[in-house]
Amino acid sequence: MSSIGLAVLGAGYWGPNLVRTALATPALRLEWLCDLDEDRARTVLGRYTTVRVTASYDDVLNDPAVDAVAVATPAATHFDLARAALEAGKHVLVEKPLTSTVADGEKLVALARAAGLVLMCDHTYCYTPAVQRIRELVRSGELGDVQFVDSIRVNLGLVQPDVDVLWDLAPHDFSILDFVLPDDVVPVEVTAHCSDPVGAGRACLAHLSVWLSTGALAHMHVNWLSPIKVRTMVIGGSRRTIVLDDMNPPSRLAVHDRGVDRVPVGSLGPDERRQTLISYRTGDIWVPALPEREALMAVMAEFAAAIGGGRTPLTDAETGLRVLRLLEAASRSAELGGQGIPVTLAVKA
Amino acid sequence: MSSIGLAVLGAGYWGPNLVRTALATPALRLEWLCDLDEDRARTVLGRYTTVRVTASYDDVLNDPAVDAVAVATPAATHFDLARAALEAGKHVLVEKPLTSTVADGEKLVALARAAGLVLMCDHTYCYTPAVQRIRELVRSGELGDVQFVDSIRVNLGLVQPDVDVLWDLAPHDFSILDFVLPDDVVPVEVTAHCSDPVGAGRACLAHLSVWLSTGALAHMHVNWLSPIKVRTMVIGGSRRTIVLDDMNPPSRLAVHDRGVDRVPVGSLGPDERRQTLISYRTGDIWVPALPEREALMAVMAEFAAAIGGGRTPLTDAETGLRVLRLLEAASRSAELGGQGIPVTLAVKA
Amino acid sequence: MSSIGLAVLGAGYWGPNLVRTALATPALRLEWLCDLDEDRARTVLGRYTTVRVTASYDDVLNDPAVDAVAVATPAATHFDLARAALEAGKHVLVEKPLTSTVADGEKLVALARAAGLVLMCDHTYCYTPAVQRIRELVRSGELGDVQFVDSIRVNLGLVQPDVDVLWDLAPHDFSILDFVLPDDVVPVEVTAHCSDPVGAGRACLAHLSVWLSTGALAHMHVNWLSPIKVRTMVIGGSRRTIVLDDMNPPSRLAVHDRGVDRVPVGSLGPDERRQTLISYRTGDIWVPALPEREALMAVMAEFAAAIGGGRTPLTDAETGLRVLRLLEAASRSAELGGQGIPVTLAVKA
Amino acid sequence: MSSIGLAVLGAGYWGPNLVRTALATPALRLEWLCDLDEDRARTVLGRYTTVRVTASYDDVLNDPAVDAVAVATPAATHFDLARAALEAGKHVLVEKPLTSTVADGEKLVALARAAGLVLMCDHTYCYTPAVQRIRELVRSGELGDVQFVDSIRVNLGLVQPDVDVLWDLAPHDFSILDFVLPDDVVPVEVTAHCSDPVGAGRACLAHLSVWLSTGALAHMHVNWLSPIKVRTMVIGGSRRTIVLDDMNPPSRLAVHDRGVDRVPVGSLGPDERRQTLISYRTGDIWVPALPEREALMAVMAEFAAAIGGGRTPLTDAETGLRVLRLLEAASRSAELGGQGIPVTLAVKA
Repeated sequence: MSSIGLAVLGAGYWGPNLVRTALATPALRLEWLCDLDEDRARTVLGRYTTVRVTASYDDVLNDPAVDAVAVATPAATHFDLARAALEAGKHVLVEKPLTSTVADGEKLVALARAAGLVLMCDHTYCYTPAVQRIRELVRSGELGDVQFVDSIRVNLGLVQPDVDVLWDLAPHDFSILDFVLPDDVVPVEVTAHCSDPVGAGRACLAHLSVWLSTGALAHMHVNWLSPIKVRTMVIGGSRRTIVLDDMNPPSRLAVHDRGVDRVPVGSLGPDERRQTLISYRTGDIWVPALPEREALMAVMAEFAAAIGGGRTPLTDAETGLRVLRLLEAASRSAELGGQGIPVTLAVKA
Repeated sequence: MSSIGLAVLGAGYWGPNLVRTALATPALRLEWLCDLDEDRARTVLGRYTTVRVTASYDDVLNDPAVDAVAVATPAATHFDLARAALEAGKHVLVEKPLTSTVADGEKLVALARAAGLVLMCDHTYCYTPAVQRIRELVRSGELGDVQFVDSIRVNLGLVQPDVDVLWDLAPHDFSILDFVLPDDVVPVEVTAHCSDPVGAGRACLAHLSVWLSTGALAHMHVNWLSPIKVRTMVIGGSRRTIVLDDMNPPSRLAVHDRGVDRVPVGSLGPDERRQTLISYRTGDIWVPALPEREALMAVMAEFAAAIGGGRTPLTDAETGLRVLRLLEAASRSAELGGQGIPVTLAVKA
Repeated sequence: MSSIGLAVLGAGYWGPNLVRTALATPALRLEWLCDLDEDRARTVLGRYTTVRVTASYDDVLNDPAVDAVAVATPAATHFDLARAALEAGKHVLVEKPLTSTVADGEKLVALARAAGLVLMCDHTYCYTPAVQRIRELVRSGELGDVQFVDSIRVNLGLVQPDVDVLWDLAPHDFSILDFVLPDDVVPVEVTAHCSDPVGAGRACLAHLSVWLSTGALAHMHVNWLSPIKVRTMVIGGSRRTIVLDDMNPPSRLAVHDRGVDRVPVGSLGPDERRQTLISYRTGDIWVPALPEREALMAVMAEFAAAIGGGRTPLTDAETGLRVLRLLEAASRSAELGGQGIPVTLAVKA
Repeated sequence: MSSIGLAVLGAGYWGPNLVRTALATPALRLEWLCDLDEDRARTVLGRYTTVRVTASYDDVLNDPAVDAVAVATPAATHFDLARAALEAGKHVLVEKPLTSTVADGEKLVALARAAGLVLMCDHTYCYTPAVQRIRELVRSGELGDVQFVDSIRVNLGLVQPDVDVLWDLAPHDFSILDFVLPDDVVPVEVTAHCSDPVGAGRACLAHLSVWLSTGALAHMHVNWLSPIKVRTMVIGGSRRTIVLDDMNPPSRLAVHDRGVDRVPVGSLGPDERRQTLISYRTGDIWVPALPEREALMAVMAEFAAAIGGGRTPLTDAETGLRVLRLLEAASRSAELGGQGIPVTLAVKA
């Protein structure tokens, strides 16, 4: 059988989505849904399924029909579960964040590399048509220089038992930022202000300032306490500006032909300088049509293709590591009352 | 004649609005429009007016028909012009910011107090029906404890010649915050990250974090480089949450019956605690109808009423001083790379 | 086994939704998916299912494990398929429209009644939380008298091979109208203007005017050619007005405390009359939170409950018949160039 | 003095706007504001004006400094006032509708022509940047064939004492339609359904269907009873579709690269035909930036330019007459219960 045998670990919040999309992916063959709570797993699969359920991870690891596992368990368990899978010779797809620490993530990367196995991180947003189009627009130079980034990801969310809002939501913003920026533009310093105004015992909202190597500032606001759901990202460029609004599907991605041009300063007197600096162009807005495609289906297809082709997936473990470094720096900054924490990210291959 | 004789100083960006509203205010009698550029002043008044134009401030100060002046000139000139007016025995309305420094502002306050004259700062937003309703909702306890504030004030704005984006836009947010918070909740520390990605020579965007005395975090984003105009302020409370959206007049102010309640912790075990903490109530939204009223008309009426009644105006010079202290702290923080700067604001009378 | 054995007929556009929701309904037991194209049916069920596929309707009708069928085939086949099922002693759920003609619909109603079987029409919108809330608000008198209805249901839709836009989309509006109006307010005349500007061979857009027994006018616009998708219904009342906007989930249902009151005319002179007539109240808007619930799940639950309880379902065949009478009148009006066609609907039981 | 002396008649709802824009138009010289209620006129002008007020129309007509009058009185008075002005040798700008009847309008046209005077109708919307851009897009062929028009103009409006909603609001839609359509596409039949659900004594809402010479259908909904204000017009074309949304300034005009193409029918079999017919192109949306310009300022400038240049204004009395013919037909249709009324409009010059 040429399809790839898959087991999904975790039937909680995200696992059902992995199950549903795996079932619909021709190149995958779902063998198991594994959860400590077998009843929960059975409920996810329903009464009409041929997929097997187990509470024993060994059943999965020992099954030669299983080529790969997809891990959708609490973040603190990612490292142990992924390591065991790699050691059993299985390819691994891990939910974000890759692990709880950079150190653990590095161990997984080393293990996967040594074993020649695919280790992929599910940064789902990188597989949305909108973010992929943004990546093209930014990296092709269409946008000009990135002048600022402003991301807002707020809603009335569950206070998570195991992670704070930073580790829950910021991986999305960090992975999108990492994904769309040109290779030579990288975060160099992170500042975080976190707040727990409800006494939840962990940060429920955070404001993150990420300085890029160009001097530009990227800001993220993540918040579990907002009664309105906002999912916007603005990327201001010297030629154009992108506005992503995930809550407005008909105009999800808008490209504004507006921006502020840098003008050669040497050639101008001080008065001229201010006036000449600003160029507004036409101000037209262009809303490109985007394909209707579920991102997680594309994640599954990419995972299968990376395994089948013996190649690195689009969001590989290195991507997950870069995101972890930013998360660790943000947490450290918050502990130090908002002090800027330098980060050093390897240049993207 | 029992009406109050007024001169407007400055026929630039904001002056024409002062002129227009002064003309329509029965208790005021516009005597002069004063601008160094008389033609500009004449253009503002039009061809059919009986109001006089002058380029000489002395004409204004020496005219006994002038009881009060309204100053709408560049910020750097506020101190000298207001001082001269006070010394000439005129009441003064000053555009925001009150002056360029706290020290100058304090001198004006002392002068006005000694002379028994009204010194009012035009924090226009405090006179909008929406902000006045917010003040009622917050200060009456309807909202519960303020858990967070998030204000966004971005658009494609002119790079100002004399002030950066912080001193241009943040006075609005600071004055609204000052106006709506209960008397015993005050800012205690300010952090600012500023950026000038276009080489304008001054900050064109800034992210401000203002810690309140309750531990809650208020954040402001001000930006001259955004192709979309956003004017929102969210005030999250333990009982309700307010969403102000100035770009959406039919639903400018929405009160969400959602929020996160603080629950007595002592009575709960650790597991219960997390689950019990969160209470979402009905989730209904209430959009109160607001009167259609121009804020600046209310500013003029308040200025006239304070003069007529010999009383302190709603946004007096002390208000302006509190805003100045926050601005100075923000500028200092930006200079120090985002370090938190403590502020001590006098308790409101 | 106490659950109800179900077969779904048709694996085309809507059938997969019936399959998905039937699989998730505990009281139902999906036995068959029947389609002339077995491969299409297999694709709908996927590779991991225990549900059987057949191209033979006899397999379904002869299977004693099948208690009920759900018909999601082209409208022209509804009558024959539903009749055969009723004659085989099966309960029937039919997609809208019930049949192609009132006469056929009446035959089905008679058959079902004689056999003591449930015959239900899937008017899905009547099972949405928003429409159910509207029904409460209108029928409780909260809204006051219904003064007008305006429904817009337009998008870029497929030109259907078998029905025009009127029979494709207007059943939704007619069934909602039928569902929410008080029992004593009924349509009495229908006018339709239809247009086929693209030469499709059938109407692609239509404007429908439905006069109610109170003299109020309900209007519907259905259109397959609109590049923007609009799904709004405004129900103007003498006390309040409802605005349903299905494309705006956060404010899907808004109740405006505005309207125009009828004032006793006898007591007023002609001048007074006009001024007094209009009362605007506060103008507040109330957006009630609605449960997140898929309407089709509620349809399935209602079908199962009606069978289990031996009772009439909420949207029974009589509902479907009333909708058919309106559709026939509309088609007739369009043929006659927009002439008004009287309709006589039985008073609701 | 080379400027044009103007008198404004009527200081009610619209008159103040004419006054304000006339004061700001360099080519005009406002001499009088004339209203039966002099106090109302004085209030409009304010305390600082040099413009004269009168209650006597003779003062205006006998004043040789008055070259032109702008009539903003109730519709029923338009004919008498405009005739008197023309007979006194004054150019005339009349608010919409031109007069109360086509017959009166024709008399004015003849008078103006005989006297060589400008007679212009203030169809303000034709002077908005958005409508002017629509005109270019439609008449240049950019849009392709006009397949349908759908206009919605509803809000909570005053029940007017002198006109019904049709004569109050539909002139806007009719004049826009007249303005943007190609010269060879003209209305040929009008149907109206009117309703007065509040007992106001006149229609408060109306649905208008206007059949064009191409067979396409234009529909207008005008309504005084809607708690939400909607101002949209969709013009569906075979190549593109325009969406005008006046309540959404940042995206007031959107051009959708979507539509349905007509395909040569002879070359296709019946099955092919349906599938091939529909072409959706990219689906991109383009939002052209529009100048910020007040339409009424452009009306004033056009009036002055037509007088100065001795030429026909953009919206001349013939335009006003075409709109009157549509209004009369609509009223007649409503009287006859929605019967279609043919109209014959002269081909535009």
